[in-house]
Amino acid sequence: MQPENAHQARVLTSLRRDGPQAAVELAAQLSLSRSKIGQELARLEEMGFVERAGKAESRGGRRSGLVQLSGRLRFVGVDIGATSLDVGVIDGRLDIVAQTSEVIDIEAGPEPILGRAVEMIGKLRAGGHLPRLDGIGVGVPGPVSFRDGYTVSPPIMPGWDRFPVREHVMQQFDCPVLVDNDVNLMAVGEMYSGLAQSVADFLFVKIGTGIGCGIITGHRVLRGSNGSAGDIGHIALHDTGPVCRCGRTGCLEACFSGAALSRDATALARGGESPGLRDLLVGRQVLTAEDVGVAMRAGDPQALGLVRDGGRRLGRVLSGLVNFCNPAMIVVGGGVSKLGHVLLAEVRSELYRRSTPLATSSLPIVLSELGDNAGILGAAAMISDHVLGVSPES
Amino acid sequence: MQPENAHQARVLTSLRRDGPQAAVELAAQLSLSRSKIGQELARLEEMGFVERAGKAESRGGRRSGLVQLSGRLRFVGVDIGATSLDVGVIDGRLDIVAQTSEVIDIEAGPEPILGRAVEMIGKLRAGGHLPRLDGIGVGVPGPVSFRDGYTVSPPIMPGWDRFPVREHVMQQFDCPVLVDNDVNLMAVGEMYSGLAQSVADFLFVKIGTGIGCGIITGHRVLRGSNGSAGDIGHIALHDTGPVCRCGRTGCLEACFSGAALSRDATALARGGESPGLRDLLVGRQVLTAEDVGVAMRAGDPQALGLVRDGGRRLGRVLSGLVNFCNPAMIVVGGGVSKLGHVLLAEVRSELYRRSTPLATSSLPIVLSELGDNAGILGAAAMISDHVLGVSPES
Repeated sequence: MQPENAHQARVLTSLRRDGPQAAVELAAQLSLSRSKIGQELARLEEMGFVERAGKAESRGGRRSGLVQLSGRLRFVGVDIGATSLDVGVIDGRLDIVAQTSEVIDIEAGPEPILGRAVEMIGKLRAGGHLPRLDGIGVGVPGPVSFRDGYTVSPPIMPGWDRFPVREHVMQQFDCPVLVDNDVNLMAVGEMYSGLAQSVADFLFVKIGTGIGCGIITGHRVLRGSNGSAGDIGHIALHDTGPVCRCGRTGCLEACFSGAALSRDATALARGGESPGLRDLLVGRQVLTAEDVGVAMRAGDPQALGLVRDGGRRLGRVLSGLVNFCNPAMIVVGGGVSKLGHVLLAEVRSELYRRSTPLATSSLPIVLSELGDNAGILGAAAMISDHVLGVSPES
Repeated sequence: MQPENAHQARVLTSLRRDGPQAAVELAAQLSLSRSKIGQELARLEEMGFVERAGKAESRGGRRSGLVQLSGRLRFVGVDIGATSLDVGVIDGRLDIVAQTSEVIDIEAGPEPILGRAVEMIGKLRAGGHLPRLDGIGVGVPGPVSFRDGYTVSPPIMPGWDRFPVREHVMQQFDCPVLVDNDVNLMAVGEMYSGLAQSVADFLFVKIGTGIGCGIITGHRVLRGSNGSAGDIGHIALHDTGPVCRCGRTGCLEACFSGAALSRDATALARGGESPGLRDLLVGRQVLTAEDVGVAMRAGDPQALGLVRDGGRRLGRVLSGLVNFCNPAMIVVGGGVSKLGHVLLAEVRSELYRRSTPLATSSLPIVLSELGDNAGILGAAAMISDHVLGVSPES
């Protein structure tokens, strides 16, 4: 169920932004008559979107009824990663009320993976966490045609190309469903619940196996003309350099990413150049980005060098993007961001060196504090905006 | 004068987007009662925003009155360049009804230049082109704090830093005034009147003495957090390379721009490497980008080489930006774009080579057809949107 007209949507936008309010305040704010606002509130109450709250002291001494978003509203966020599946339930205020997680392999294909997600939602319902279900947001690790609700040419998702994710999930639950790229949704999560709550324009950079970026401008996700905006992993750093999984050479993520760190650290360990990394490789085939962090913190200079070089490369690409879109903040997340402040210091240094002073005069570059929750929060917040007709700009 | 409420703004948005309409259609479209729409239309007519048009055949055979935007609405666009000052008058449909141009030197400072603009507007009024004046949009060649209506740290505008351009013009004319960066406004002009009318997301790249970019996402200008978005001239191409006027090395516009072409062509002519360019230099101190075009078209290989190298460099930077923001079109304008299709062919080739296939699968890269009118059109359209309360998204 969704609001029936623009007035109702504006009422819900106002209630989510400003909390409980008196009907007379809402009427004044939206230039509607008292009888009209009464009528719209009655419909919204019937549909279960709003409820009566306590009484507020009115100016004339009379007491008028407050209305607020219904405490029973429930939205589900599904965050499908390459190797993990996270499902969370949030209420109308975007607070997480329940969540669950499983290990998956995205290459199993859409029907098995979405089947798992459906089961997980079923269990949350059985556990009493879904007294109702107002909508489901789904994030996937590839480019998405947002309008159509499916992935388009996703490089790491065999079998998912144009699979009707939205239709499939809607058929199971008969509620509104939206699908978006996972990094876009992590950015939405940061906008509503993370460090970027105070800003209208920011970049969320996810460093995992690959590198991606969610772009928020004027409180909205910039998706681009066919859903591939934010694909910064294949921006050219060098004309030569390592061959990327996309087939070109010198792409950012071929030079710096979880996969590139794993490759470079393993080579250093095998070549015997780094005793610290060599010791970590004993009995294993490859090192991971996490191992690089362990060796770096233990004082291994080669591991430290990998992180610093990586930070400079990422900073170089970001410096151009900062000149281009002049964000108010950069939030860095994803597994590899756990390399932490050593990485961030190099990114900052390169940014301040290469971007224009006006664009960096007040540009915080911070580590995400939401961790794995950013994706489910963003997915659920996106469908909540859609269902309530809420305009994200406040 | 501006619309008094959201209903009136929505009426004006609808009339500009869809042309003349019957009051009953507007009522249905905006979910307002017939009496309410009648009341709002009467107010809009009193304020001079709308007028009665012909009659439309209604379905039941009765004839109902059409309303349309007033034919007397007039908006002024002022486009302040480094060496030229253009002033144009447009009507409510964004058609140019009069325009005038003068040669200036931006370094004369804000009061003399704005004084000239005020005189030019006065002459257009004396000539009968301004039966009324509903608003003025002003474009300036530097970063702008859009909210404050002044330029911020403009590199080529001595004396203009934080000069209150908007206040100054408002005091002269007592009408709404907005100020924006000139390249942003050229992009707005392309959105309303140029080749980009059909797309929601595009880049407008201006190649003049320097290089700048106007970014339109979802039919809106992306200005960034402090008005410097689109400043692509200082994106790093190389770690070494020519020193830029910004003090860093290897910036795009130090490698390719009107100024860089002039520098490189003059050096080639003096060094005797290009007979074509050498002949053009006879009796002069320096060559211009235009001279490079003349020599290129006459078959000079060195001149052709400069244009091709430049196109590749621009293409290299744009390839990263295309991956980042996934536009539906790139429009290239500004004086140096007159180098035309040789330049564009190199840009395209580099873009298709370096950007991801999804981002370039349908990406027209075209030359602007608006020429010098893009700036005044965009400036006037911006203030028209603001005054009418029109939402640019259709």
